[in-house]
Amino acid sequence: MSNFGFKHLRVVNPFEVAFREARSAVGAVPLLAQAEEFQSVADAVADCSLVVGTTALNQRNPEHIVRNLTEGARLIRKRLARNKVALLFGSEKRGLSNEDFSYCHWLLHIPTAEAHRSMNLGQAVAVCLYELFRDAKRVRPSETVTFARASDLERLTSLLLDALRASDYLKSRSTEDSAAPSTNREEERIRRFARRMRLSSSDAGQLTGMLRQILWKLGP
Amino acid sequence: MSNFGFKHLRVVNPFEVAFREARSAVGAVPLLAQAEEFQSVADAVADCSLVVGTTALNQRNPEHIVRNLTEGARLIRKRLARNKVALLFGSEKRGLSNEDFSYCHWLLHIPTAEAHRSMNLGQAVAVCLYELFRDAKRVRPSETVTFARASDLERLTSLLLDALRASDYLKSRSTEDSAAPSTNREEERIRRFARRMRLSSSDAGQLTGMLRQILWKLGP
Repeated sequence: MSNFGFKHLRVVNPFEVAFREARSAVGAVPLLAQAEEFQSVADAVADCSLVVGTTALNQRNPEHIVRNLTEGARLIRKRLARNKVALLFGSEKRGLSNEDFSYCHWLLHIPTAEAHRSMNLGQAVAVCLYELFRDAKRVRPSETVTFARASDLERLTSLLLDALRASDYLKSRSTEDSAAPSTNREEERIRRFARRMRLSSSDAGQLTGMLRQILWKLGP
Repeated sequence: MSNFGFKHLRVVNPFEVAFREARSAVGAVPLLAQAEEFQSVADAVADCSLVVGTTALNQRNPEHIVRNLTEGARLIRKRLARNKVALLFGSEKRGLSNEDFSYCHWLLHIPTAEAHRSMNLGQAVAVCLYELFRDAKRVRPSETVTFARASDLERLTSLLLDALRASDYLKSRSTEDSAAPSTNREEERIRRFARRMRLSSSDAGQLTGMLRQILWKLGP
């Protein structure tokens, strides 16, 4: 991170001993000292308007758009002109879970040899940040829209879930699909849906207002 | 290396215990098992026609062309079409020495933030190989020349040094330059010179023949 000028490290439920005793490389001491801890992915990305997950494509991720690093980095750089972006990495051992993915707008994939896709975590981070840094000077027209922050989208998601439950939409869906006993999978589906819309900050606000009104109408 | 499809690891004078006890990541076991050990950089790169060193530019390297990774990777890929290429990394602690650099045709630099240039070795390797792999599918007209191998160039270098000593060229140079007490610096200079010429395999053979003849004429 420090090599490529990135300063904000956020960690979700780190293994306390390993995290506190981690020693940073020469030059990266302030970065690690200022790392922030969070209890959940949702909290960690709350102020970001674009959340990009990383995947080795070992699992199938049919629910998400997967972009390769070169193309994805270009979109991230554009977004960074006016908005905060979170790049989400999973643990060394298991990568990101489906629940983690559901907080992401889309996924990023580092092209690798077919025979060996899973990368070392530190190396994967280095490669992604190199690609973001590499072209930083090539000026491109930047986005002028302020996009909804993750916390706004999470509020929207939760109102939408309430509305869908209150209107029996979710109930009827889950009886159709017998392989889905958990409401978690429905929540993840709705969460992904809310992120696919690419809502601007003001549109997210409007939609939130509409849902509040609908919920009020649907009654207790 | 394994992630990006590179198979030939060569190590020069590794710390024996660390090297033998090194455990490779899942999927990279054969690569480490087949790694070859060498006693010198010259031996390790002997069959390669292009030797590229890596530098964080912490030292000045005015004697060499330094290319940034994107541009350098393009040249390496072209050369790989018909020739073997060595990508040379120094130790984690000290990088490559000036003597190591003298075996290189040119140097490669990963663009980094000014404030923190020295990269972790494994991350630097990953970033370089990603860049080589990334564009591998973009077909470009490939080079059709077979270039001289490092061992040919080393033989040439050593004949040239003999000829320059026999003709008192080197002697007269070293008295001019009072700050150069070691013949090592002269050797390094001549070695770099021999590599700057970009000799094809057959031209290197011709030049070697010429030098043999000159040496014979210069007498014992």
